[in-house]
Amino acid sequence: MEHFDFASDNTAPATPEAFEALAQANSEAHVPSYGADRYTAQAEELFSALFERQVKLFFVPTGTGANALAISALRKPFESVFAAPESHLERDETAAPEFFSHGLKLQLAGDSRGDKLSIAAMQHWLKLNRGVHSAQPRVISITQATELGALYSLEQLDAIHAFAAQHQLLIHMDGARFANAVAASGSTPAALTWQRGVDVLCFGGSKNGVGLSEAVVFFDPARAEDFAWRRKQGGQLASKMRWLSAPWLGALKHDHWLQRARHANAMAQLLRQGFIERGLELAVETQINGVFVRLGEQQAAALHLKRWHFYKFLEPDVYRFMCAWNTREDRIAALLDDLST
Amino acid sequence: MEHFDFASDNTAPATPEAFEALAQANSEAHVPSYGADRYTAQAEELFSALFERQVKLFFVPTGTGANALAISALRKPFESVFAAPESHLERDETAAPEFFSHGLKLQLAGDSRGDKLSIAAMQHWLKLNRGVHSAQPRVISITQATELGALYSLEQLDAIHAFAAQHQLLIHMDGARFANAVAASGSTPAALTWQRGVDVLCFGGSKNGVGLSEAVVFFDPARAEDFAWRRKQGGQLASKMRWLSAPWLGALKHDHWLQRARHANAMAQLLRQGFIERGLELAVETQINGVFVRLGEQQAAALHLKRWHFYKFLEPDVYRFMCAWNTREDRIAALLDDLST
Amino acid sequence: MEHFDFASDNTAPATPEAFEALAQANSEAHVPSYGADRYTAQAEELFSALFERQVKLFFVPTGTGANALAISALRKPFESVFAAPESHLERDETAAPEFFSHGLKLQLAGDSRGDKLSIAAMQHWLKLNRGVHSAQPRVISITQATELGALYSLEQLDAIHAFAAQHQLLIHMDGARFANAVAASGSTPAALTWQRGVDVLCFGGSKNGVGLSEAVVFFDPARAEDFAWRRKQGGQLASKMRWLSAPWLGALKHDHWLQRARHANAMAQLLRQGFIERGLELAVETQINGVFVRLGEQQAAALHLKRWHFYKFLEPDVYRFMCAWNTREDRIAALLDDLST
Amino acid sequence: MEHFDFASDNTAPATPEAFEALAQANSEAHVPSYGADRYTAQAEELFSALFERQVKLFFVPTGTGANALAISALRKPFESVFAAPESHLERDETAAPEFFSHGLKLQLAGDSRGDKLSIAAMQHWLKLNRGVHSAQPRVISITQATELGALYSLEQLDAIHAFAAQHQLLIHMDGARFANAVAASGSTPAALTWQRGVDVLCFGGSKNGVGLSEAVVFFDPARAEDFAWRRKQGGQLASKMRWLSAPWLGALKHDHWLQRARHANAMAQLLRQGFIERGLELAVETQINGVFVRLGEQQAAALHLKRWHFYKFLEPDVYRFMCAWNTREDRIAALLDDLST
Repeated sequence: MEHFDFASDNTAPATPEAFEALAQANSEAHVPSYGADRYTAQAEELFSALFERQVKLFFVPTGTGANALAISALRKPFESVFAAPESHLERDETAAPEFFSHGLKLQLAGDSRGDKLSIAAMQHWLKLNRGVHSAQPRVISITQATELGALYSLEQLDAIHAFAAQHQLLIHMDGARFANAVAASGSTPAALTWQRGVDVLCFGGSKNGVGLSEAVVFFDPARAEDFAWRRKQGGQLASKMRWLSAPWLGALKHDHWLQRARHANAMAQLLRQGFIERGLELAVETQINGVFVRLGEQQAAALHLKRWHFYKFLEPDVYRFMCAWNTREDRIAALLDDLST
Repeated sequence: MEHFDFASDNTAPATPEAFEALAQANSEAHVPSYGADRYTAQAEELFSALFERQVKLFFVPTGTGANALAISALRKPFESVFAAPESHLERDETAAPEFFSHGLKLQLAGDSRGDKLSIAAMQHWLKLNRGVHSAQPRVISITQATELGALYSLEQLDAIHAFAAQHQLLIHMDGARFANAVAASGSTPAALTWQRGVDVLCFGGSKNGVGLSEAVVFFDPARAEDFAWRRKQGGQLASKMRWLSAPWLGALKHDHWLQRARHANAMAQLLRQGFIERGLELAVETQINGVFVRLGEQQAAALHLKRWHFYKFLEPDVYRFMCAWNTREDRIAALLDDLST
Repeated sequence: MEHFDFASDNTAPATPEAFEALAQANSEAHVPSYGADRYTAQAEELFSALFERQVKLFFVPTGTGANALAISALRKPFESVFAAPESHLERDETAAPEFFSHGLKLQLAGDSRGDKLSIAAMQHWLKLNRGVHSAQPRVISITQATELGALYSLEQLDAIHAFAAQHQLLIHMDGARFANAVAASGSTPAALTWQRGVDVLCFGGSKNGVGLSEAVVFFDPARAEDFAWRRKQGGQLASKMRWLSAPWLGALKHDHWLQRARHANAMAQLLRQGFIERGLELAVETQINGVFVRLGEQQAAALHLKRWHFYKFLEPDVYRFMCAWNTREDRIAALLDDLST
Repeated sequence: MEHFDFASDNTAPATPEAFEALAQANSEAHVPSYGADRYTAQAEELFSALFERQVKLFFVPTGTGANALAISALRKPFESVFAAPESHLERDETAAPEFFSHGLKLQLAGDSRGDKLSIAAMQHWLKLNRGVHSAQPRVISITQATELGALYSLEQLDAIHAFAAQHQLLIHMDGARFANAVAASGSTPAALTWQRGVDVLCFGGSKNGVGLSEAVVFFDPARAEDFAWRRKQGGQLASKMRWLSAPWLGALKHDHWLQRARHANAMAQLLRQGFIERGLELAVETQINGVFVRLGEQQAAALHLKRWHFYKFLEPDVYRFMCAWNTREDRIAALLDDLST
């Protein structure tokens, strides 16, 4: 038997509360399609409450589509986007942002580790600007939390916001693990987003146990005015929209979404502790639900032989173990046992 | 209370069997993401059995994405696609095919009613070909059944196939209502597709009660070799793929999919009969699950006043009433009652 | 020896005055590149004088690029463009507008002959608008003069302008033969363009004897603000810009451009007269520099045998003969002679 | 008076021999358009002779168009291109390659200075390949000579060729200064291109004094089979093609093109020598027609004050001075004089 527990937070199913909400919505015989239904309307209300502000909300079925469309909505073909070299946008999207955004250049501007943006690096690009011969910077894409499980602090977000304001740049936040970021930071969703100048957030449902649904959240309705057309044209408008919106009703009730994220984060701490106790070295701090640990080749091979699935994330020896809303302590123990022997 | 029963076959939920299969799949703790799971593998086997041939299968979340990606995979930017003027591709996709297929021209080549292709019209375009100054015809897109609920007969499909072969054109089939077409035609899925030269079929799950899933079916694996990358780049690769594949396991078992389509078709016949008995004139023949009837302005207004939702489909007076897998006889009776009074 | 005199107005060279101006500009040793030179600045002044208004001017090397870029600058990917079915945009550009305008749908809205727009046809499309499921009309593209050598009258232009204003549409004018249109209409360039609501004009230099240069003329500077980037990104920014701008200096001096167009138009009248005298039937009125005449198959074959090059333009029997700035009376006589024998 | 002598090799006009050939071609009354003329045919013959191999040749008006189209012809939207960080493709094209190549990712793989490719860096990217989640490497783009005026040696080209062959990659060569590279290397055009595995070369005419024309040279006709359509659709097909081809007839006769490049290179050596004699430090070796020298802020300001135009190329203190086919010794002396005082 294969063990996918720690391969990705994508291997987990939807949570019971999300699935139950979907089941209930699916039991209604006839519902308007394309988002004109009451489940979707209610979801927008819940999101507005959550973010302490009236938002414009668009559900889409994939994270790739969410990020690529959100970015294309903020810019023109000759305008570029600052992103970190280790961002999902740059590393894991098969040039989907470039595909959706006719003529996109991602300007890589990372810190030394590569998962966070560096203001110095962005400033460097601005200096190199050659007018009509250069794609013009227009958007900053922040991943919160990053692909290496790191959080931008409020101070870091403020600094980016100030830089953006100074140079008339817009801010996109890739929140594939936004729930984990909220849980870990102790900040409110509002504090992490529009209060730091974020213009559009892609709030990931998939990794938070909400099934197959990502929420594109616009904090300024004016920016969202044509997004309905972009979503349709980009193949991201689901006819049975209740399948995308209803699971969020379950997730947002009683703060389930946050508790699920907290659990995942806590499991990562447990796993991290186990690694440390077994003398392993962590490659980066464990701030959310992923643990990045250095393994010898033999250690990794031994775990693979015992059918644990996990990926090498950074050369030469950093491996990633992800926890999810349904990660169990006994499975962590099993993994650690298999590591020891 | 609003009545959405006949507004679209998209207003219905997933069938119990599809939803049950999803529930079962969702109950498994950890499953490989992006399609490397056993539900998806099993679905490919079932589709291959259904089509009496080894197929290459790709699930995507939207019909727009399915058609646009399938077409982009068959052609280069300067190659055009023959389509009917009333096809969904041309009329209801917000230029999504053009968006996905960098530089697409849809060559409209319809018969007099506009929902089916006309070989004469396609031949006319070929004659007008001005070499390097013209987009070069490469694909024929057939909608089976059409937007006006008509079936292409086997003879018509054969004629198109012969024409395609003669001019080295590929065939795409938009099968948003393929299940209804199979049910109404009495032909097998194989007989309606690859045995008539179809290269790729977009088999609609959404309107067939399979939830949020469309199947892109390649009959020649060689044509599918790079589709995995296109699906990802086009924002149509779901990480939780089991949500797209599992519902099909329920639908394909015991020919549920076909019986559900038969029911929808039968309800349309019942509704059609009711219209005729009330002295209304049908605009087109009722071959699948849609009834296109002429209504006076007052008749239409009266029904709208009673909160029945339905759309004018053709100017000046043709209205569309769609039946779905869950359409009930008593609701048809209620509609007809409201029409009479 | 082959005779290309009447094959196209593209077979002619640049006029002496245009070429001389280029020669002079090319004799200067070092000139700023990319348009920051005095020839280009002077050309913008001359255009502003010609159009009786300060214009924003961009030279590009091809007509395809001019039209495609101008259109892409006026709209978003999900916004459509009204065009005549026989327009160059639709018929002779190998889907270049679609290529340059990420997700473009040309909404064909022609009169019965197909070369002019029909307001009724545009209104029909507006009626069919299905909201988020439809590309949204945003631009009207007028070809002045049309591919069949017809002029829009001031009244027709006014009617289109009023329609555009009513529906918040912008107006693009494809002026590949704008010079011939001005010459034939007796109207001023201003009267044919911004005074009729035209937002951007592609003023063809190539067919007017100006060499390899097309002028994209924006009448509202605000619409042009990002066109410099679009031109560069679209591969239409020439480094040796003086090669594109200098020939216009020669052409615009002493109204050469207009006299050259008048000559071409006059030659077409002469040719038309000759056809009529030989009992041939004209297919359309001869308003500018093209003559569209019906020929029997044998007549056409006989001319081809005598190595005259010309094209069948409309099925089954309408052939096009184009005159240019350098068409000679004796060559017309020679053609007519070969026709008679 | 402003001095543009050293601002760019783009500020020079066409050479007398190129212009004379154009004048001669322009004196012919009627010539087939779009490249079906004898000037273009003869140019293809001369290129084939020059490259000692039958080539497929396409003239285009801009270097941006040449490179962007050539690259788009070699790959699919999800396939990536290796390029150097300081390449024109990456740094000076306003995301034109991304615009022309629907969904392009340039994988930056440079050596420490950034203007040449590094095989180690390309290997690093191959290691990071995540299958369907990564754009797939398909093309290597070599700039010969580089933006910093460096030549790839035959050994370096062989190494890249071997790497390409091993990984089934194609090779594009940006030859904006190919003539200077040939002149400086002492190798034949064949030895620098197809004999080193280059699939397509963009041979720059503009900087070599050939006017407004770039030659896209395919060494394998099979790769060029659809390029005629791409050129048209990409807005790069000139109707008056003789304007693009005839200047090359002048340039290629008597090896003018090569002698012109040799002169430019020799002038750069002279300028370099002058800089050294004045105690300045060169930032990179002077291999072709550009001199990259370190200047103090005051030195640069003083030259600018005396109206010499030149650009800072690398932060903080490296300035570029370009020589062209028409650079004069007395102008170099004048520049050096102004530098000294």
